[in-house]
Amino acid sequence: MINQFIQQLDQIISLNEEDRMVIRNTLRIRTYKKGELIAREGKISTSFYYNLQGFVRLYYTTLSGDKTAYFYSPGQFISDYESFVRQTPSKLNLQATERSTLVDISQESAAKLLQYSPKFEAIARIAMEDELITHQNMIASLLTCNAEERYYQLIEKTPEIMQKVPQHYIASYIGVKPESLSRIKKRHFERNS
Amino acid sequence: MINQFIQQLDQIISLNEEDRMVIRNTLRIRTYKKGELIAREGKISTSFYYNLQGFVRLYYTTLSGDKTAYFYSPGQFISDYESFVRQTPSKLNLQATERSTLVDISQESAAKLLQYSPKFEAIARIAMEDELITHQNMIASLLTCNAEERYYQLIEKTPEIMQKVPQHYIASYIGVKPESLSRIKKRHFERNS
Repeated sequence: MINQFIQQLDQIISLNEEDRMVIRNTLRIRTYKKGELIAREGKISTSFYYNLQGFVRLYYTTLSGDKTAYFYSPGQFISDYESFVRQTPSKLNLQATERSTLVDISQESAAKLLQYSPKFEAIARIAMEDELITHQNMIASLLTCNAEERYYQLIEKTPEIMQKVPQHYIASYIGVKPESLSRIKKRHFERNS
Repeated sequence: MINQFIQQLDQIISLNEEDRMVIRNTLRIRTYKKGELIAREGKISTSFYYNLQGFVRLYYTTLSGDKTAYFYSPGQFISDYESFVRQTPSKLNLQATERSTLVDISQESAAKLLQYSPKFEAIARIAMEDELITHQNMIASLLTCNAEERYYQLIEKTPEIMQKVPQHYIASYIGVKPESLSRIKKRHFERNS
């Protein structure tokens, strides 16, 4: 499965056979069960991740319940950047909403790759770029879209998410109660039938 | 004024006298009037910035008015990263809320600096790091804090902002009407007197 990650990297920094072997021997693939936490509020983050399979939910806890900020799709980098670079306790939670497979890029493995070749700096750069663009879009969506617009954006980008992610997480993402999500889905179904 | 920027860089990549001269000769300092736009929705962003002086407002426009996402303080990098790297139209607006001075790091000047020395890659890396952490914190605040908590976070981090930024922008940032901001300020004043 790591070949999917190697292929994406290869498009940016061309990798020879030795590079590929070093990546395979250094980075760890981790599988998470449905519902399992990948990162947890209050803990210090020692890895960042590349999502190979599954939707990973980013959420925050509040007195009035969880607030879902985002679902990471396969092919995206995932990080708690502040916690990772400053070694401060995390403010966020990352959860596998279904059985998920991630490349785990720990600080030690990142250091090993960099020692082998400085060209692996590109991994951190691409991960940061990806994440920064994702976050800028998250903010634009949070501030400019209502619940229905967020629902449409989500199913347009990742139509399969409705079958894979528990509905109360989708409701939390668009910022409504599950009953309101049902109404939005009904309206959408009627419009398209 | 660029010395303030050079000093910050020098803490990360140590700069010799020639490096400093190259920076001074390559990067442009720009001053914006109160209210002036630095970046505008729909335009392609060709620079990123380092804020030397003034509060810069990040906002989005919606049918129900502007939504203020953030005020950048002096010492922070500012970018519309997606528009800058992918050359796509910007979704956001950046506005000088008071007379402001920024280092303008255009694509051409960044390329010139990189041609002179690859160590200037660090500028882009630091800018991205800064911005990613800022954005992760923006999302945490938007999802977990109510208006009053956002007000307290803001005046704790940047107490001087209340004198410098028009009050309706502060109200838009905390997500309330100006009258509600007055009530929050009154409660805060009474608590502290």
